[in-house]
Amino acid sequence: MIKTFGYAAPTATAPLDAFAFERREPGPGDVHIEILYCGVCHSDLHTARNEWKNTVYPVVPGHEIVGRVVQVGSEVTAFQAGDLAGVGCMVDACGVCPDCQEGLEQYCPTFTLTYNSPDPHTGQMTYGGYSNRIVVDQRFVLRVPKTLDLAAVAPLLCAGITTYSPLRQWKVGPGHTVGVVGLGGLGHMAVQLAHAFGARVVLFTTSPGKTADARRLGADEVVISKNPEEMALHANRFDFILNTVAAPHNLDAYLQLLKRDGTMCLVGAPQEPHPPLEVFNLIFKRRRLAGSLIGGIRETQEMLDFCAEHGIVSEIELIPIQNINEAYERMLRSEVKYRFVIDMASLPEPATGFEVQWNRKDI
Amino acid sequence: MIKTFGYAAPTATAPLDAFAFERREPGPGDVHIEILYCGVCHSDLHTARNEWKNTVYPVVPGHEIVGRVVQVGSEVTAFQAGDLAGVGCMVDACGVCPDCQEGLEQYCPTFTLTYNSPDPHTGQMTYGGYSNRIVVDQRFVLRVPKTLDLAAVAPLLCAGITTYSPLRQWKVGPGHTVGVVGLGGLGHMAVQLAHAFGARVVLFTTSPGKTADARRLGADEVVISKNPEEMALHANRFDFILNTVAAPHNLDAYLQLLKRDGTMCLVGAPQEPHPPLEVFNLIFKRRRLAGSLIGGIRETQEMLDFCAEHGIVSEIELIPIQNINEAYERMLRSEVKYRFVIDMASLPEPATGFEVQWNRKDI
Repeated sequence: MIKTFGYAAPTATAPLDAFAFERREPGPGDVHIEILYCGVCHSDLHTARNEWKNTVYPVVPGHEIVGRVVQVGSEVTAFQAGDLAGVGCMVDACGVCPDCQEGLEQYCPTFTLTYNSPDPHTGQMTYGGYSNRIVVDQRFVLRVPKTLDLAAVAPLLCAGITTYSPLRQWKVGPGHTVGVVGLGGLGHMAVQLAHAFGARVVLFTTSPGKTADARRLGADEVVISKNPEEMALHANRFDFILNTVAAPHNLDAYLQLLKRDGTMCLVGAPQEPHPPLEVFNLIFKRRRLAGSLIGGIRETQEMLDFCAEHGIVSEIELIPIQNINEAYERMLRSEVKYRFVIDMASLPEPATGFEVQWNRKDI
Repeated sequence: MIKTFGYAAPTATAPLDAFAFERREPGPGDVHIEILYCGVCHSDLHTARNEWKNTVYPVVPGHEIVGRVVQVGSEVTAFQAGDLAGVGCMVDACGVCPDCQEGLEQYCPTFTLTYNSPDPHTGQMTYGGYSNRIVVDQRFVLRVPKTLDLAAVAPLLCAGITTYSPLRQWKVGPGHTVGVVGLGGLGHMAVQLAHAFGARVVLFTTSPGKTADARRLGADEVVISKNPEEMALHANRFDFILNTVAAPHNLDAYLQLLKRDGTMCLVGAPQEPHPPLEVFNLIFKRRRLAGSLIGGIRETQEMLDFCAEHGIVSEIELIPIQNINEAYERMLRSEVKYRFVIDMASLPEPATGFEVQWNRKDI
C-alpha cells in the first residue's frame, strides 16, 4: 500500500484537517499520479458537510485533479512516468453496460466516484484529490495539455466538462442564442465555452458587479435577472439555456425565455427543491427542461483538447491547503473569482506520530 | 350574418343553457359547416367555469367538431357543399410567422382559438362547437374520413391530435417502450396511437378497474400507479412517457422510470401546480421533461388519415346537448368512457322570442 497524506473532513460539523491514509499498490492497468493541483468544487463542500445525506467519514474531497505520473502498471500504454495527467469525478465504471459502451460512464449504474464512493478495489470508500497522490485505472486518466496553466486546468475536470457536455449534447453553435444562468465556477466556464462554439451568449446574473467579467469572458450581453422588466424583454428568444445555479430559484422565469422547442438544462442540484413549475410554460412552446451530469471520459478528453486549442482555462485563486475551511466560507458568500485551486505543494508531510493520530480507524 | 343557435355558459357559476348568436357571412376563403357532432373536452369545462381565469361570457365551448359543408366561398378549392369536414382547437393564425410557415400554427403567437378567443373577423370573442353551424377559414378545416363513425371521430380533433403530435415529435415506434399516464379522453387515444405506431405500451392508472379496457385498446401492460413497489419495478425502462393527467401529482415517480435521455411529455395542465421536482432525477440520467400543445393543421390531417387507415376512433357516449351540465359533473367524477360527444340533432330551434332573450348583449 502507498502512504498518502491529505485533508479530510472527520465529521459533518468539524473543519477539514490533515489526514493520513493508504492508496492501493498500482495494478497492471493503474496509473500512480503525484497530485500538483486540485480544484475546489461546491460538491466538495456539500459532501464534507453531508448536505446530500450520503457522506461516509472521514471524507477526502476533491475531483478536479492535475498531477504528474510517477509510476504505471505493466499494461498501461497511454501514460508513462513524467507525463502530466488529470482525474475528474470518476475513477471507475463497469465498462460493459450500454452507457459505458457509448462512452457515457457518468450514467453507468455502478460507476465509482473519485471520493465518497464504495471502492471496488479496497472495499473502503474512495478518497479524493485533497491529497498528495492517487492511483487510478488508466481508463479514467486524462491527458493534460502542456500548453495551459496547470493550476487553471484543474477545474476543467469538473466545472469544464459539466458545462461542455450539455453544450455539445444540445449542439450549441453559430446562429444560436444561448443563455448561461449564474457566473460562478460552472457559469464562467459555460460562457467561455459557448462563446468558443460560436453562439451568441447572454449571461444572467443577480450581481451587476459581474457584468465586466462576463463580457471579458465572452458574454455578448448581460441581463440582471432580479429585474422582471429586463427579463421580459428576452421572452421566446433562446435556443438553449444552461442553468448553473444550485440555489432554489424560479425556473419559470427562464423557461419563458426559450423559443419553441428550446431546452433549459440544469447542472446544479439544489438542497431544497426549486419552486413548482408552471406547466403551461412547457406546453405552450413545446419547451423542454433537462438535466446533465458531468461528461464521459472520451468527451472529457475532447474538452481538454478543445480548451488547449482555444486557450480556455478556469479563472482561479490558488490557495494553500491550510486555507480550505476559509475557502469554503468564502464560497458560501460567493467571494471567489471563479474557482479555488489547492496548491498541493503546501501539503506538509506529517510530523512523527501523525499517522497514528490521524489514521482513519482512530477518528 | 348567419343566425346560429347553441349552448353557452352565461357566467362561471350558472349552468350552460340555450343561446342564440350570429356567425359571419362566409368570405371568399371560408367554409360554412353544419355541425353534426361536437366532443366534450375538459378544456370546455375549465373555460365554462373560468378556471383558467380568462373566460369572457357568454362562452360557447366546443372544439371537437364534425359536420357537413353547406356552403363555400369563391376561393375555396378543397371543399364543396356536402363534404364532411372537421374543425379542431384553432380557427385562424397569422400564416406568416416561422411557426405557421412550419405548419405549427398552434405555436403562432397570434393564433385564434375556436372559442373564447378574440375573433379578428368580428372583433368579438369566438364561439365554439356547442352550436348548429360554424364559419371557418378553409386553412383550418380538416377533411374527415368517410369510413369512420362520425360521432367517434369528433374527439380526434383535440384528444387525438394532442396525443398524436408528441408521439410523432418524439418519434415513438417499434422497439420503444412507451408509458401512457391516465386512461381518460386523452389517454385512451394515446394508448391506441402508440400501439398503432408499433411501440410496447404500458398504461399507468390509479384505477385497477380500467385494466381490461386498457388492454383492449392496445396496452401491453397495465401498472397501478398507486403502488410504489410496482412502480419501482419499472425504473429506467421507458424511452418516452406521455403524461395525460391534469390533476396535480408527483412527476418524480414517472421521471424515475425513464431511461437515460428519455422524455416525459406533459399534455395536461393542472389548475394548481404539481409538487416540486427532484432535480437529481433529471441530472442523473440526462432525462427531459417537456410539454406539447395540440398539433398543427397539416399534422391533424395526417392524424385523421392515419386513424382512418388503422380504424382508430374515440370511445364515446353520445349525449343530447340538454345533458351537458350533467356530463360535466360526470367528467369531474371520471364517470365517462372515454369521451362525451354531443349529438347536435338534439339542439332545438329556439321558440319565438328566444333570440331577444338570449342575445349576448342582453346577458
